[in-house]
Amino acid sequence: MSSSLGTLFRISTWGESHGPGVGVVIDGCPPCIALTTEDIQHELDRRRPGQSKIVTPRKEDDKAEILSGVLDGQTLGTPIGIFVRNTDQRPSAYTEMAQAYRPSHADYTYDAKYGIRAVSGGGRSSARETIGRVAAGAIARKVLQHSLKGYECLAYVKTIKDIQAVVPSGSDLTSEIIESNIVRTCDAEAAERMISLIEQVRSEGNSVGGVIECVVRGVPAGLGEPVFDKLEADLAKAMMSLPATKGFEIGSGFAGTLMTGLEHNDEFYMDGQQVRTRSNRSGGIQGGISNGEEIIFRVAFKPTATVLREQKTVTNTGEDTTLSARGRHDACVLPRAVPMIEAMVHLIVADHFLRQRALAPDTAI
Amino acid sequence: MSSSLGTLFRISTWGESHGPGVGVVIDGCPPCIALTTEDIQHELDRRRPGQSKIVTPRKEDDKAEILSGVLDGQTLGTPIGIFVRNTDQRPSAYTEMAQAYRPSHADYTYDAKYGIRAVSGGGRSSARETIGRVAAGAIARKVLQHSLKGYECLAYVKTIKDIQAVVPSGSDLTSEIIESNIVRTCDAEAAERMISLIEQVRSEGNSVGGVIECVVRGVPAGLGEPVFDKLEADLAKAMMSLPATKGFEIGSGFAGTLMTGLEHNDEFYMDGQQVRTRSNRSGGIQGGISNGEEIIFRVAFKPTATVLREQKTVTNTGEDTTLSARGRHDACVLPRAVPMIEAMVHLIVADHFLRQRALAPDTAI
Amino acid sequence: MSSSLGTLFRISTWGESHGPGVGVVIDGCPPCIALTTEDIQHELDRRRPGQSKIVTPRKEDDKAEILSGVLDGQTLGTPIGIFVRNTDQRPSAYTEMAQAYRPSHADYTYDAKYGIRAVSGGGRSSARETIGRVAAGAIARKVLQHSLKGYECLAYVKTIKDIQAVVPSGSDLTSEIIESNIVRTCDAEAAERMISLIEQVRSEGNSVGGVIECVVRGVPAGLGEPVFDKLEADLAKAMMSLPATKGFEIGSGFAGTLMTGLEHNDEFYMDGQQVRTRSNRSGGIQGGISNGEEIIFRVAFKPTATVLREQKTVTNTGEDTTLSARGRHDACVLPRAVPMIEAMVHLIVADHFLRQRALAPDTAI
Amino acid sequence: MSSSLGTLFRISTWGESHGPGVGVVIDGCPPCIALTTEDIQHELDRRRPGQSKIVTPRKEDDKAEILSGVLDGQTLGTPIGIFVRNTDQRPSAYTEMAQAYRPSHADYTYDAKYGIRAVSGGGRSSARETIGRVAAGAIARKVLQHSLKGYECLAYVKTIKDIQAVVPSGSDLTSEIIESNIVRTCDAEAAERMISLIEQVRSEGNSVGGVIECVVRGVPAGLGEPVFDKLEADLAKAMMSLPATKGFEIGSGFAGTLMTGLEHNDEFYMDGQQVRTRSNRSGGIQGGISNGEEIIFRVAFKPTATVLREQKTVTNTGEDTTLSARGRHDACVLPRAVPMIEAMVHLIVADHFLRQRALAPDTAI
Repeated sequence: MSSSLGTLFRISTWGESHGPGVGVVIDGCPPCIALTTEDIQHELDRRRPGQSKIVTPRKEDDKAEILSGVLDGQTLGTPIGIFVRNTDQRPSAYTEMAQAYRPSHADYTYDAKYGIRAVSGGGRSSARETIGRVAAGAIARKVLQHSLKGYECLAYVKTIKDIQAVVPSGSDLTSEIIESNIVRTCDAEAAERMISLIEQVRSEGNSVGGVIECVVRGVPAGLGEPVFDKLEADLAKAMMSLPATKGFEIGSGFAGTLMTGLEHNDEFYMDGQQVRTRSNRSGGIQGGISNGEEIIFRVAFKPTATVLREQKTVTNTGEDTTLSARGRHDACVLPRAVPMIEAMVHLIVADHFLRQRALAPDTAI
Repeated sequence: MSSSLGTLFRISTWGESHGPGVGVVIDGCPPCIALTTEDIQHELDRRRPGQSKIVTPRKEDDKAEILSGVLDGQTLGTPIGIFVRNTDQRPSAYTEMAQAYRPSHADYTYDAKYGIRAVSGGGRSSARETIGRVAAGAIARKVLQHSLKGYECLAYVKTIKDIQAVVPSGSDLTSEIIESNIVRTCDAEAAERMISLIEQVRSEGNSVGGVIECVVRGVPAGLGEPVFDKLEADLAKAMMSLPATKGFEIGSGFAGTLMTGLEHNDEFYMDGQQVRTRSNRSGGIQGGISNGEEIIFRVAFKPTATVLREQKTVTNTGEDTTLSARGRHDACVLPRAVPMIEAMVHLIVADHFLRQRALAPDTAI
Repeated sequence: MSSSLGTLFRISTWGESHGPGVGVVIDGCPPCIALTTEDIQHELDRRRPGQSKIVTPRKEDDKAEILSGVLDGQTLGTPIGIFVRNTDQRPSAYTEMAQAYRPSHADYTYDAKYGIRAVSGGGRSSARETIGRVAAGAIARKVLQHSLKGYECLAYVKTIKDIQAVVPSGSDLTSEIIESNIVRTCDAEAAERMISLIEQVRSEGNSVGGVIECVVRGVPAGLGEPVFDKLEADLAKAMMSLPATKGFEIGSGFAGTLMTGLEHNDEFYMDGQQVRTRSNRSGGIQGGISNGEEIIFRVAFKPTATVLREQKTVTNTGEDTTLSARGRHDACVLPRAVPMIEAMVHLIVADHFLRQRALAPDTAI
Repeated sequence: MSSSLGTLFRISTWGESHGPGVGVVIDGCPPCIALTTEDIQHELDRRRPGQSKIVTPRKEDDKAEILSGVLDGQTLGTPIGIFVRNTDQRPSAYTEMAQAYRPSHADYTYDAKYGIRAVSGGGRSSARETIGRVAAGAIARKVLQHSLKGYECLAYVKTIKDIQAVVPSGSDLTSEIIESNIVRTCDAEAAERMISLIEQVRSEGNSVGGVIECVVRGVPAGLGEPVFDKLEADLAKAMMSLPATKGFEIGSGFAGTLMTGLEHNDEFYMDGQQVRTRSNRSGGIQGGISNGEEIIFRVAFKPTATVLREQKTVTNTGEDTTLSARGRHDACVLPRAVPMIEAMVHLIVADHFLRQRALAPDTAI
């Protein structure tokens, strides 16, 4: 059950990178939601390899096929099966890795855990697994847009290594700005420098990481389930389950620890009939429950573990060796991680929306 | 089910701060584990109010009573019920708060979610809820110590506001050092400055936060369940479900985003028969699975929301107002949060240990 | 987690028969439901030992204490903890049983499973565990009555050994008739003969079983979650988790296998605006989903395993021996099992009601 | 999540009868279990339409494709995706049923629940959904055979309408006998009469039901998780989740209610070092935990709801009407239900085996 996520809107992903394909089953999607293959394909195209010059040149079409749960453009309320066939497999590129554990990859730990491993392409630990998440997230988004007026989730690259984007304030931050550059940052000027840096480290066989920030709008007050399934707790789990993530913070985050309580607290005020806060250091969640403000959080991505340079390592038979990775890879995963983060937000919020509808349909929503 | 955590070693906490008491049910604890009330009480005493001059002076004995699941000092394999009676309740201190929402507390969001709220003492959103977690964590620790030689979890205050502790390296970091000062930091000199700061902000009716770091030793390679129940994902959720947390990072964390892949990767080497890494920027987890190195992570705690100064806010009937909190509170929660973090680690690791035992008893353990 | 039941309305029972007490935590109860201790106590009194001359004379008050989740007579939406202290314990009566396994009891299997056992009173396998279920069921009933007009669940003894009750048809079957006799059957004449039989077998140190039938009214069409959580599947599990049950059947049940399809099918007709069936061999559930008709099912209870006569058995050290049980017991569990069955129905229906409210709030309800 | 079953060995089925196909994801299968497509195909062929003259002549190959989780004939410990493409679809046969609800089918209740329905072929309520169960069950069987010496599950038709099979005792009951006739009963003489009856009712456009009995051998003492996940409770749920089931009983079942306790109890004796019972009215489970004896239970199947005769019903717009079903169907589902029941047993036992291995690896197994 470790490949399943969610209580009511529940997904189960499956598939190895170099097997027949990857996919997902969504169980618990409400009926009568408009849904087309294009809704899903649009998001898959945003995470697809080969989409720009700064991502891996692997040639995967990543065409989604809906196998069940949808009829005449509407969900049936039954499990939705989605299948994406693998097409560009080059097992030969992985021969050497069959013996030598790639540093900071999951090769060794998979062997330690399972006693067996799909070497080629990283198997289940490949980022290809996130295809199922992105496809399911596209459906969760439809569910939310169906019920929550104004629901919108915008993730964007905040930093690549030490290059920082300037984030437009309020409604100036739009999907258009983010999608206007291939890094998916919200700052056209920084985008240029980020692209240059990524191209440079790739030419050196090296890699870089960074931070993605995410703003979620239109979430009503009342979502989140204390004490363990707090909204930020479920978001943190969802983000830290993505490959290459090393940190999560919400609202003021780690920097907030440098403030005093008086500086940090978000004072309430009435905005017409609505309770609002003047600042948003809480990040839109208080006591584990959304308060109606924008939800804002950040996720740290380490530099890609695959580097095309010789590194020391060991073999699966316990001998010291060296390994020089070859093959195609992302020198920086962040541009493709943006839609993954948005997908995980859709999944968590949709699940909590349904949970709240069960608990108290008239209270918050 | 939102007050339950864990798949096999599963706990359910219950209780409001000012009701009859708080408690926990542990379902799935293996049988024949030695367990006494003292094992539990020892940890509760570490999180107890009134334990030192820098924590809230509330007078709660927090005496644990084991109601089931244990006989003659051994677990039965049946649910373990634990009850801690509330004793020091002063509902009158909360009269004003019944109407006015405390800034950056859960008052407003609980009303938005449930349409009703246990005003006195914060009800379920009170840190008193963590008593059940700490009690259950003490039992999880016994399970792990029973099966995993060398298992040890050490949390300590790393920073209070901008005061940083120097962390002793390797085996110089011990429980004794941490418990030798009332802040529970690992640096005697920094401890003095931290204590002074906490006393100062308290005298001003203000508050501070900080960062707790945690090192977990003796976890074998192989724990963690990709793709969603990765070990760091479950740790992140557990930590972010604690009150006042704003961030989680593992290994290199956010700072790791400033490195290149070549700098960041942890090279493997053979240490006798054991696969080891020379550095530990992975934080002991790779691909969601423990690799046998120390697990190391950090958690950000915001400054306590309760400040004894007038703040602007609104009433539950939608009118702007001001509120001056009174009553007893922690000007800094970190000293008491240390055992909470350790408890959450015990719970997550115990659950994953049992899951791995089910999956592949001969592989890793 | 094996002592937990339910997806959204989730209960966790705990407690051994001869420990400090037994209890339950209800997690997921909606807020703002009126609830008093009396609501719970009324049902506990119906399952209490010593309530009549035909049940065990054990003297347990079984007084429920609500420890959390309720304030001023209303649920808070937070976990509801309920505690019932054990009072009448006679461990000495169980000395002999510490060594010899009681035939058709759980003594041997608990030892085989856990390697340890709370001998006294049967520990966790005692029917005392059902106190938590009955208490939680009383709360589930309040939730259902709050939302579903006309919801009513009536269980009654249909047979004791070979004595059969005549069941009044339609609205002639009432709670009053069932509660008018100490067997809790729906046929005053049969009640007399049942009581005589129970008294006779008890005087002989023997025991009897029988069948309880249950009718549930006011369940709207649309509850039940194919394909695994079909309403009858969850009812079957709930019933078969009760002590001493050996069978479950719904609608036509086993007897329906003697009919042809043409005889068996329930034809639809319009009753004003409502779709109805002329017969009800489906038992109110079709394809795993309620159809708005009365839900009707039956549960087989074996004769009580405790008999006060010498029986052959073995010791826990593997030697043949004999055992003559002493102590107080029910010669027939059915009168006290009636409220247990009703409680399990309330729990299952409440859980499915909340699940349907999450899935499709406007469709069926 | 209602299409998922199991705690550790967890399956999720998906697919409508007349969509692209049906399938299943198995999450939690241990690694390093030998598995081939043939293992799965063998069981699918036993449930396949068109396999004999007494089942539906639908022409479905039901060829299983393993999409993930298996490499070089061994499980990887990752989710196993299985896909079976639908081939024989005749939507035209269902035009009339789009408006008129088939009596005792799930047409009306699906509309009531979801507000939408895949009319053609019954959609999700079709018995085609059980393909995923049977495929997953074949894998669970491999897991059990890998770890439990002597594990075997034999289901067989006990009665068709009023025709009863004589069951060979002990080791005379074999898979060969059951598979030697197309009814899958254990009595060659009764088989002839059953076949005649099925052919006769089919020629009349009518249908029949019956009872399947199941014997499970080689289950060690100690499996089953009181108090809710008792082994018989989980078996009951699994069986009652199959289409067309109306009843479940274990061991003595409903007939056991006619005995006294002294007659009913299973006395223990020592058989060498092993605790055994002389009789088996418990059906191999005591207190919810297997006792090492054969597990034996029975399941009632109603006569197939599809009959080729005119019946009264209503339309989905609320008008009385009549309906004469056409198309191909099983006049008796039991021969094809035998492998379904075995699959459900494998799934439940495998899940409980893994749960016990987590809880107490040294105790029972």
